[in-house]
Amino acid sequence: MSNKKLVESITSRDKDFARWYTEICLEAELMDYSDVQGFIIYRPYGYGIWENIQDYLNKRFKETNHKNVYMPMLIPESLFQIEKDHVDGFAPETAMVTTTGENKLAERLIIRPTSEVLFAKHYAKIIESHRDLPKLYNQWCSVVRWEKTTRPFLRGKEFLWQEGHTAHATKEEAVEETLRMLKIYEDLGKEVLAIPFVTGKKTESEKFAGAIDTYTIEALMYDGKALQSGTSHYFGQDFAKAFDIKFQNKESKTEYVYQTSWGVSTRLIGAVIMVHGDDEGLVLPPFVAPDQVVIIPIQQKNEKVIEVTNKINNELKELNIRVKLDDSNRRPGWKFSEYEMKGVPLRIEIGPRDIENGVATIVKRHNREKITVELSKITEIIPKLLQEIHDEMYQKALNHVNENTNEAKDYNHFKELLEQGGYVKLSINEEAEEIIKEETGATARVIVEGEMLTDVCPVTNKKTTHTILFARAY
Amino acid sequence: MSNKKLVESITSRDKDFARWYTEICLEAELMDYSDVQGFIIYRPYGYGIWENIQDYLNKRFKETNHKNVYMPMLIPESLFQIEKDHVDGFAPETAMVTTTGENKLAERLIIRPTSEVLFAKHYAKIIESHRDLPKLYNQWCSVVRWEKTTRPFLRGKEFLWQEGHTAHATKEEAVEETLRMLKIYEDLGKEVLAIPFVTGKKTESEKFAGAIDTYTIEALMYDGKALQSGTSHYFGQDFAKAFDIKFQNKESKTEYVYQTSWGVSTRLIGAVIMVHGDDEGLVLPPFVAPDQVVIIPIQQKNEKVIEVTNKINNELKELNIRVKLDDSNRRPGWKFSEYEMKGVPLRIEIGPRDIENGVATIVKRHNREKITVELSKITEIIPKLLQEIHDEMYQKALNHVNENTNEAKDYNHFKELLEQGGYVKLSINEEAEEIIKEETGATARVIVEGEMLTDVCPVTNKKTTHTILFARAY
Repeated sequence: MSNKKLVESITSRDKDFARWYTEICLEAELMDYSDVQGFIIYRPYGYGIWENIQDYLNKRFKETNHKNVYMPMLIPESLFQIEKDHVDGFAPETAMVTTTGENKLAERLIIRPTSEVLFAKHYAKIIESHRDLPKLYNQWCSVVRWEKTTRPFLRGKEFLWQEGHTAHATKEEAVEETLRMLKIYEDLGKEVLAIPFVTGKKTESEKFAGAIDTYTIEALMYDGKALQSGTSHYFGQDFAKAFDIKFQNKESKTEYVYQTSWGVSTRLIGAVIMVHGDDEGLVLPPFVAPDQVVIIPIQQKNEKVIEVTNKINNELKELNIRVKLDDSNRRPGWKFSEYEMKGVPLRIEIGPRDIENGVATIVKRHNREKITVELSKITEIIPKLLQEIHDEMYQKALNHVNENTNEAKDYNHFKELLEQGGYVKLSINEEAEEIIKEETGATARVIVEGEMLTDVCPVTNKKTTHTILFARAY
Repeated sequence: MSNKKLVESITSRDKDFARWYTEICLEAELMDYSDVQGFIIYRPYGYGIWENIQDYLNKRFKETNHKNVYMPMLIPESLFQIEKDHVDGFAPETAMVTTTGENKLAERLIIRPTSEVLFAKHYAKIIESHRDLPKLYNQWCSVVRWEKTTRPFLRGKEFLWQEGHTAHATKEEAVEETLRMLKIYEDLGKEVLAIPFVTGKKTESEKFAGAIDTYTIEALMYDGKALQSGTSHYFGQDFAKAFDIKFQNKESKTEYVYQTSWGVSTRLIGAVIMVHGDDEGLVLPPFVAPDQVVIIPIQQKNEKVIEVTNKINNELKELNIRVKLDDSNRRPGWKFSEYEMKGVPLRIEIGPRDIENGVATIVKRHNREKITVELSKITEIIPKLLQEIHDEMYQKALNHVNENTNEAKDYNHFKELLEQGGYVKLSINEEAEEIIKEETGATARVIVEGEMLTDVCPVTNKKTTHTILFARAY
């Protein structure tokens, strides 16, 4: 049984990471390009990853008493312009409907780039009393932002996401909510994506248009660049004042509500590819993989082989494992390459000789380890193997973060470390952030809590105000 | 415990059905209007109904090997115009993006009113061989059609739906798929919505723009009008020829694929309201209800009451029943009216005296029947009651269809029966359909299979060509 690659091979990730990424997106059939630049087709295998993310988050959102809703896709331009910071942030990227059939509209309508204003307007109408609070709503939808440069999953003119929008009676509750949702995103990384997110607060210049505080989950890619993978915003009362969202508190006084919003998008698919993938293709963590196990019969027309592979297929299905039996008449070697490219975590090979010996070969995608397992033990061992693989992949990604997180105390050392890739901590005066960005291309990923590394900022020579985790980023 | 209505009462459905409908939509908090005419906000309770429909259909779609995908929201105008019948059907209703930021686009982009052309283009690219077939894709999304008159859920400028698009190697397989999906929609009515759909083929004039055959599920509303509630189309090779979707068959000859598409939308929420609702508000069939059971403590601060209601709440949750314990400090009478308006199938009332007697009162929403049940039997009886309620609601709706389906053999009798509401069968020459529509407002809902009622068409005096189930419709 030849294991030589029969699908087209891809560029090595060390040779050209950007090209490697695009080739995986296409070869693993995650997406395809459409006729409109920056709009992609989410193919079944890519969309399946998103569905698994949705299932996990919907469960967590519902446990924490959130409700799903759906707001209109179109926003009148005048409504969009009510909150000033917000409109300044988004106006250049808006796609506008001006015509229907052959009629010109009286007012231009913006395809939602995000739905803050729609939720704010609705909340102003339905919230009257403290008994109506908190309002904990979430929406799954697609949004449109007319970005100039686009890349599959990472930055598109249209992307899929969830946006949570909540209103609370007190600041404390709203801040608690902001951090609760950040934690759920962090758990998504730990439990599903096998990605150790660095979490923390964004600096003033990096925060969301209209937010008081923006918290982020940041992931470190294989190439040493960071990817902002989700955000959770505390809005205070700014939107409430702009949109007049008031309630009667327990003392019958009128107050403005405190708001939050939080979201993750199909950008997470890009993170999974760039954290875990290798030169053979995609490597999917088991709990986000559309197919967790593929069974490949060797001699797929042999009756014994048909019987045993079907039996194992059914037993694994009973355990709610996402298993695929590929009994098509393509050659085993072709199938091996195909499912390696697609990053299926476990491959089970079963042929006539295996059956005689009462065993099967199991191959782990993430480290290519082969093990021989007794046929009678397969259904028992698979769930354990999936958990083991998840844990190993998470640990490997965590090691990558740890090995690529450094501290600098002077600017030259900072620049040297930056060239190696990864995160670099530096204590700075806030005025230095823009200079560093300009001179090195590194941006502030999060504010690091705790003591200053130095008292004086090595860039401005002014007093340090905070420690920042810098990185070059997507 | 006063049972008098504390929420605002609604118009009687016999007095003004249209107003009754709109009031339920708002009072039961299913939706709200937005700032753009014809675009609604799907509030949690309305969206929850849609989520239950999605869960059922996703399960059925996946069992039948369909995969979810996501296509771009925007379609270049030139792509949209490739299939002539299709563009003629949709062009007047298209919403067009012409501007981004302050830049004019080179080509206008249409917000999808439906995605046939996107799937056709993609299939042309990814299908090469008979081994690539069938392709069984489905998409959940919202679509935009610039309708002039709109009503919540029934007809909107934007609505939520699923659209299945499939490609097959043979006509037989494609026709089989068209009917398979129609059957799944019929099952959705039987098993979830408690709506007996009449199914069948549409006439030439009522079929979908671009289809060879359109099959439909039709529901009969309380007011005797019909509602087209979903469709399944057989496209033959028309789109395949327009978009050049070819494959090599087993004999290595090049052929065009055979296609289908099928969809249901949030219009189904409108059907549920108008089939089952009554003068106290919404009446939800148990398997589509976001809350299946509400527990209302009488004296919600009594310790025994707290203990017992919490215990039952938890036990029902364990059984995966969607239960809500309303221990807010609103008065029981207020809560009774509230959950009647929202159509929650079962209400459990538990007070201190009930606990002393070891019983609780259960009230069924659909027929207002009260029963006394031993506390220890509640968790055992609830699942049975939910199934019973579903069956009774389905039977009642079926009786309504049967009692309001008539046959006519002459045109005057047809008009008389039509005035009574409901379906009227009439055998006609195909030329009569337009005349009947013009003169009576009744449209052809489906073609009835079987023998002619008369040999001569009572409208045109020509030979009858088919029997039609007519009704006035939404």
